[in-house]
Amino acid sequence: MPTYKLTIEYDGAAYAGWQRQTKQATIQASLEFALRKLTQEPIATVAAGRTDSGVHALGQVVSFRSERSLASTDWTRGLNALLPKDIGVRSTELVSNEFHARYHAMSKVYEYRIVNERHRPVLDRGRVWHIPKPLDLAAMREAATSLVGTHNCLSFQGSPTDNTNPICDIRCLEVKNVEIEIHLRIEADRFLKQMVRAIVGTLVEVGLHKRKSEDVEKILALQDRRAAGKNAPAHGLYLVEVFYPGSVNRDP
Amino acid sequence: MPTYKLTIEYDGAAYAGWQRQTKQATIQASLEFALRKLTQEPIATVAAGRTDSGVHALGQVVSFRSERSLASTDWTRGLNALLPKDIGVRSTELVSNEFHARYHAMSKVYEYRIVNERHRPVLDRGRVWHIPKPLDLAAMREAATSLVGTHNCLSFQGSPTDNTNPICDIRCLEVKNVEIEIHLRIEADRFLKQMVRAIVGTLVEVGLHKRKSEDVEKILALQDRRAAGKNAPAHGLYLVEVFYPGSVNRDP
Repeated sequence: MPTYKLTIEYDGAAYAGWQRQTKQATIQASLEFALRKLTQEPIATVAAGRTDSGVHALGQVVSFRSERSLASTDWTRGLNALLPKDIGVRSTELVSNEFHARYHAMSKVYEYRIVNERHRPVLDRGRVWHIPKPLDLAAMREAATSLVGTHNCLSFQGSPTDNTNPICDIRCLEVKNVEIEIHLRIEADRFLKQMVRAIVGTLVEVGLHKRKSEDVEKILALQDRRAAGKNAPAHGLYLVEVFYPGSVNRDP
Repeated sequence: MPTYKLTIEYDGAAYAGWQRQTKQATIQASLEFALRKLTQEPIATVAAGRTDSGVHALGQVVSFRSERSLASTDWTRGLNALLPKDIGVRSTELVSNEFHARYHAMSKVYEYRIVNERHRPVLDRGRVWHIPKPLDLAAMREAATSLVGTHNCLSFQGSPTDNTNPICDIRCLEVKNVEIEIHLRIEADRFLKQMVRAIVGTLVEVGLHKRKSEDVEKILALQDRRAAGKNAPAHGLYLVEVFYPGSVNRDP
């Protein structure tokens, strides 16, 4: 059966995250509903990252199989006509039969957006975390440095899951200043549940001088969620990109 | 009585424009309601640009008078606590008594945002005009050049108004390419009703090769709204900045 790879964008505000649930609207349920309408087949999808409730995506990757063999542009156009306005397909590719969006992902990139100025954002409300007090970016960058590398990240796992491997290779953790915004960009081979939000929450506490940069190393070593900072809110988080073997890193 | 100058930001989606109306929610009514709550005085406001229904603002300027004399930061903070989430005050300044936000404005800057790629925007939906077919930016820029200068702009006036002066000095009209977006930035000493949307709609028809660049000069000369293109939709338009004597041009 042909296997397809979708790259999708969504506004997570109205959804209880990616994963299908009995009573709440989810991205996966909406996408599978559109796929079923388009193909008349019951289609199961797999996403690279199972984003939490309220989290957005600019480049989530989804794989599925279907008896239907449509041209890429027809999949994209057909799905976009059926999906709600807050979910959109950016591209569809026919891939090899064994392709699996989650198992084959080499790394994922998340971006977290903060507006760091006194007044609340208006046009960007619900899309960024508003922090009115000035953040010490130098301290945040110093703390970020000690997170880069291969670590046991249990201190940043939001709640216990069936996942038994707490080791993540954080390949990059940048703190960028974009006008009045601060963007934290993090790339890793894998992420524990709510890990980005726990890391961002902790770095923000460093930026507000509630913690020292050098504390982050100790937090990692403790392997205890209570050691780290509060989770940053979901609505500032974006799944930006997923890399697969043979895929080329695009410049941001 | 002290006179104040507010710089405000708003998401126009939920409002029937700036100007107070009997039955519909407007920016002016919401702002005057907040001012009344804060001061216990009935306060009348004047805006630099009376934006249409659905139009946004990043830097609308508003003047008002009040018996209350508060510090700038207290006005800003007090109003932000009372205003709805889609309207925000960025700054408050005490100005000279004769200051009038509309009469004293030397020029205003509007920006129009277009997303020019095949797939509909998701996170930016309702904030940009989606044009799936590729736009010929060179042709649009050529057409824009002939609009810069002092002209009778009746061909771009949306509907008859009580305004009897159709002469506008368009000081700048840039067509910028920002990743997948096209931003049209227009600065003029004054604007006729729906003028920016008529100009953008006409330039887009040039970009789609439905009209030639050189037609724009003829359209201006005809002084007839029927000669120009359709209005661009309101939701892509932003009032960005207003300049007053003595105020310094900030770089974009």
